[in-house]
Amino acid sequence: MRRIKIKELLASGEPGQKVIVKGWVRTFRSNRFIAINDGSTINNLQAVVDFENMPEELLRRVTTSAAISVVGVVAESMGKGQRIELQVEQLEILGDSHPEEYPLQPKKHSMEFLRENAHLRPRTNTISAVYRLRHALAFAVHKFFNDKGFYYMHTPIVTGSDAEGAGETFRVTTLDPVNPPKTEEGKVNYAEDFFGKETNLTVSGQLEAEVGAMSMGEVYTFGPTFRAENSNTTRHLAEFWMIEPEMAFYDLEDNMDLAEEMVKFLINYVLENYPEDMEFLDKRAADEEKSKPQKERWEMGLVERLKFVVDNSFERITYTKAIEILENSKPHKKKQFKVPVEWGIDLGSEHERFLVEKHFKKPVIITDYPKDIKAFYMKQNDDGKTVRAMDILFPGIGEIIGGAQREESFSKLQQRMAEMDIPESELWWYLDLRKFGTAPHSGYGLGFERIVQFVSGMGNIRDVIPFPRTPKNAEF
Amino acid sequence: MRRIKIKELLASGEPGQKVIVKGWVRTFRSNRFIAINDGSTINNLQAVVDFENMPEELLRRVTTSAAISVVGVVAESMGKGQRIELQVEQLEILGDSHPEEYPLQPKKHSMEFLRENAHLRPRTNTISAVYRLRHALAFAVHKFFNDKGFYYMHTPIVTGSDAEGAGETFRVTTLDPVNPPKTEEGKVNYAEDFFGKETNLTVSGQLEAEVGAMSMGEVYTFGPTFRAENSNTTRHLAEFWMIEPEMAFYDLEDNMDLAEEMVKFLINYVLENYPEDMEFLDKRAADEEKSKPQKERWEMGLVERLKFVVDNSFERITYTKAIEILENSKPHKKKQFKVPVEWGIDLGSEHERFLVEKHFKKPVIITDYPKDIKAFYMKQNDDGKTVRAMDILFPGIGEIIGGAQREESFSKLQQRMAEMDIPESELWWYLDLRKFGTAPHSGYGLGFERIVQFVSGMGNIRDVIPFPRTPKNAEF
Repeated sequence: MRRIKIKELLASGEPGQKVIVKGWVRTFRSNRFIAINDGSTINNLQAVVDFENMPEELLRRVTTSAAISVVGVVAESMGKGQRIELQVEQLEILGDSHPEEYPLQPKKHSMEFLRENAHLRPRTNTISAVYRLRHALAFAVHKFFNDKGFYYMHTPIVTGSDAEGAGETFRVTTLDPVNPPKTEEGKVNYAEDFFGKETNLTVSGQLEAEVGAMSMGEVYTFGPTFRAENSNTTRHLAEFWMIEPEMAFYDLEDNMDLAEEMVKFLINYVLENYPEDMEFLDKRAADEEKSKPQKERWEMGLVERLKFVVDNSFERITYTKAIEILENSKPHKKKQFKVPVEWGIDLGSEHERFLVEKHFKKPVIITDYPKDIKAFYMKQNDDGKTVRAMDILFPGIGEIIGGAQREESFSKLQQRMAEMDIPESELWWYLDLRKFGTAPHSGYGLGFERIVQFVSGMGNIRDVIPFPRTPKNAEF
Repeated sequence: MRRIKIKELLASGEPGQKVIVKGWVRTFRSNRFIAINDGSTINNLQAVVDFENMPEELLRRVTTSAAISVVGVVAESMGKGQRIELQVEQLEILGDSHPEEYPLQPKKHSMEFLRENAHLRPRTNTISAVYRLRHALAFAVHKFFNDKGFYYMHTPIVTGSDAEGAGETFRVTTLDPVNPPKTEEGKVNYAEDFFGKETNLTVSGQLEAEVGAMSMGEVYTFGPTFRAENSNTTRHLAEFWMIEPEMAFYDLEDNMDLAEEMVKFLINYVLENYPEDMEFLDKRAADEEKSKPQKERWEMGLVERLKFVVDNSFERITYTKAIEILENSKPHKKKQFKVPVEWGIDLGSEHERFLVEKHFKKPVIITDYPKDIKAFYMKQNDDGKTVRAMDILFPGIGEIIGGAQREESFSKLQQRMAEMDIPESELWWYLDLRKFGTAPHSGYGLGFERIVQFVSGMGNIRDVIPFPRTPKNAEF
């Protein structure tokens, strides 16, 4: 007799069937009802023991989070919310869990306390549901791109330059930390370092992904990226996962179409394939809402707003139009924005939220930003002022995707790099892509944790990745 | 009219159909036949131009690796090896490629030269085929585990300890490299570093994956890992990708069954879904063989040996039995092994190759190694000498998978950590897994590049990852 997973048993178990189930005790009520969970589903199996015919010392070891193995016969359940239960014939304790020492008592713990116990928190309903969704979304990403003929590309984690200038980086080194070798000028002599030069952790795989696009046609990355920013917020991690598709022969319209289609596919995939976890998280989000002040509450429930995103076209407007709307808005006229609105500003969270949550009440794609607030590699428009950038803004989350059509002109790219002091010696290969068979191409980046947050309704990004890395924290 | 990808066009294009194709010029023969490739397939589309009715200055720009867009009508092809071709009506040069400056001339380049041009090498047949296979294998990994109900888990890249002791590590830091803050004893004061302690790049996600197994049941990782070893070989990278499944309630037999099933699934997936790339690589491997001395040649062709692996059970023997076989072998008796065989030695490549390639002539799984040559976390056998380890050895590649049943006993694990000087203060959370509901569990690691090498037949691991990281090399 092979072990059956609880998910399978609950879905297809038939009364009279004899099975082995293994898992961890969630609760043990009335010396009779053991709720067992094995991680395969959010639902527990109810295992019913005949306590009069079981050794008392064995039953005493059935405590929260003890690992057990039970052999039993499936029976129809009288309990509500469950079709079947298990009449236990044999019970074995695989691993005890001392009820007073076990950190996660059967009560509500703060998310912060759970973070300190990141090695045990996936034994809770909330975190295990989030991790299953994280898996679901990751798989859906691969499925979406594979079905479209994109190729997954592993871009390097250790890189020789922070050419993109996307943020502060972590240095990677094997040099003696106390007495590193020095050059005659007293600088660290990185020629003696492992890679023979100064290296750091990647902030984006985009530039390398463009190599893939300009040969394989359509590629995507899905890997870890790093920012050494001292941001202690509910939206920032020092280590996070990014998805970066890059496509030859795509203009900005094609790029936006793909991004919108992808996001909708991801959300639909989860709604269709993980209804039980979504139902649980929907209720959880509704409970959370009750503790918030009225004006901070969502107008819609979690699942409702996911369906809303799937069912509606994203609004597409230019940056210039967005500024116009903001200039004509009440908060602007009443001087309620902290950063006053004028053409050229980098839109802040307050502006984005107004556009998305108040004005359009749906996801918004803003295009054609001023070139001075965007990266060097974006395609310059003929107006000399703007670039073919696009940011997708989501309610509650803000920017979830940032992308652009890339500058394909060698001379324009070269000039922009010079203006922005980006050394050609580091990006000779990137320039080469414009020298040998350049073509229009586009791409974007999706912060994976942002979409997991949006879909799961979790307020803090530290609760959607198993072991978050943040300033002063690299535990586990 | 939307662009059609060449893979789709070659598979389903019908004579008379009018299409747009975009891609890069591979060759241009007789001022008439353009071979276009867009990365979607190894096969080129033959586009036929009517040179008498095309401007000569336009045709002169149809050079190797120029990006072009053509509108044309599908026609049956007279050429051999192709069902259809395209009669060009409009030709547009999207991006020129100066024929004398373009580094990859239409001739055979050394793999080393291609590595120096890693930004252009996926425009070659060999490397593009390898990258498509790499994608195929990665997707197959996710599909295999997803279909089985495993959850993908992102374990941390930056970690606070090298507890596994699996090798030399890279330090991750934001401290001033020249004058780092120091403690009173003159050591670097890592309390002031970004994460508040000394951190490095992960060598394995296994220990954190066990957290997943002991709550979610069955999980796997697929992410980058790092070794700061000064190994300049055809089998080592400083940055490589690993797949590490961890499963609760699996013993070593279950673990071996899963690993064998997975490897066979991956190979089958590629053979079934990427026949054209495999056919190309099969021929390429056969050509390579001809340049090797007779005794170094494979007995079977590439595809033949992949099918052989799929069709045969892997041999399963204990380490003790392996030593016996080696002691009775000709090379041992003739003193041909560099490292003499005796119980307790770490098997070297010479021993492994004898067992796999000469004795059993198929993949071999060796189990129950001496505990002194294996990691602290492996389950101890009752003999007091061996642990429940398993290594899978492949012809040509050597160890492709290493795994074990994990030690589930708190006291045995604690004792082994003490013996091996592994501080409990760093792995308190790992010990906790044995304290609160421990259970038998197992897992293994597959070096992703090793399987890509085996399936593609590439001799050097640097040619199966887009941007290899090796000692003194972090270019691109």
